[in-house]
Amino acid sequence: MPRLHNFLSLALVLLIAGCGAAQSEEPASVAETSQEAALAPAGILKAGFVGLETVYNSELMAPYDILQHSVFRDSINYVETFVVSPDGQPFTTFEGITITPHYSFDDAPEIDILVIPSTGGSMSTDLENEVFMTWLKQAVDRAQYVITVCDGAFPLAATGALDGRQATTFPADRDRLAEMFPDVEVLYDANFAVDGKFITSVGGALSYEPALYLVERLYGVEHARRTAQGLVLDWDVSQIPHFIASQ
Amino acid sequence: MPRLHNFLSLALVLLIAGCGAAQSEEPASVAETSQEAALAPAGILKAGFVGLETVYNSELMAPYDILQHSVFRDSINYVETFVVSPDGQPFTTFEGITITPHYSFDDAPEIDILVIPSTGGSMSTDLENEVFMTWLKQAVDRAQYVITVCDGAFPLAATGALDGRQATTFPADRDRLAEMFPDVEVLYDANFAVDGKFITSVGGALSYEPALYLVERLYGVEHARRTAQGLVLDWDVSQIPHFIASQ
Repeated sequence: MPRLHNFLSLALVLLIAGCGAAQSEEPASVAETSQEAALAPAGILKAGFVGLETVYNSELMAPYDILQHSVFRDSINYVETFVVSPDGQPFTTFEGITITPHYSFDDAPEIDILVIPSTGGSMSTDLENEVFMTWLKQAVDRAQYVITVCDGAFPLAATGALDGRQATTFPADRDRLAEMFPDVEVLYDANFAVDGKFITSVGGALSYEPALYLVERLYGVEHARRTAQGLVLDWDVSQIPHFIASQ
Repeated sequence: MPRLHNFLSLALVLLIAGCGAAQSEEPASVAETSQEAALAPAGILKAGFVGLETVYNSELMAPYDILQHSVFRDSINYVETFVVSPDGQPFTTFEGITITPHYSFDDAPEIDILVIPSTGGSMSTDLENEVFMTWLKQAVDRAQYVITVCDGAFPLAATGALDGRQATTFPADRDRLAEMFPDVEVLYDANFAVDGKFITSVGGALSYEPALYLVERLYGVEHARRTAQGLVLDWDVSQIPHFIASQ
């Protein structure tokens, strides 16, 4: 049985049963600000961040911070974060910072939340990188959620996963996304778009947003607000232009 | 003769003479949005970012991005960025990302712009780290500008450099900064404060701001706005609560 189906069934049972820590953290306002209660998954979700040469600092770090900080809100039910590179060797970001990944494509654990930041090659060389694209397609298929930041939408689109779906990317590259992938419905007015398990976003200094949205979906608005506050942000998704496809 | 004095004298001569590329980039609006014209330093400024164990991702990366991206606005007059750690060996950020520095304290080049991000130990163990504090004091003395992000204000305050100056830090830690360093005038309502060569700031997702302010001071408001735009930000310092001490 697909893992996502199991996961959602378990979450539904837990919610109905009024299970412990996660449930007690949901404030009365969740129903007002969000159409649905938090999923409140139990245990540790594994978030793998793709690290390729020339990945952009902000697009890698911002969602990483949001998801990693979840452990400080709840030390039992949280997101564990790690960086995955093709060969497990250090790589250098676009801005020139050298990062040592936690895993390679070959030894990475099962990834529940896949995060694809943009790189200098997202719209070109990465798409022709067969090792990357082969790994990416199976990682996308297996993940429960996929977040793209900035031009990270391009490799995701190249897997076919966004065909018939609404998505967005770095503002100056939206036309190009639409041209290269005509089956993707590109949104021009959203900071982030949610369609099925895919959360695509504009990137840059706004790279915190898609991760905060996912944190709110998983753990509730209060958890998301406190995480944002730790980064001197006021989180209120109703104040951010975004799109959520009806499920 | 102190390097800063030379630097400013040269900048003044260049401005008066209407020198080339930097001057031509200054739009008419600089005089309206900023009390002074851009300094327009010629050549490459060296920005050293302090990398200690448990440094926070966002506080290191955000100002790094802003300053590093300057080379894309002007390939001759820009800021060169690098990370400096005590021993030149890889260190791990608070969120668990391993970074290899460019230099050690011993072999780092002369630092024009010193950037001190917060770490998990900024308010405690870093202040008792004699190797760090000894190096920091001389780096602060020699730098033309010092930017602190989040609790990076604490080690700067510990050098005595902020005595009699106005400064700010991560909002929840402002009281502690005031208690630990009573000669520092702590500001509670500013995202960043500029007093002399010191730019202190709140950190988190707002860590782009002190660097954008410095870019505007150095290269003009148009350069700063374009740099911000590349990170999906609208830069307008008049919309940000900040404080600039009269010089």
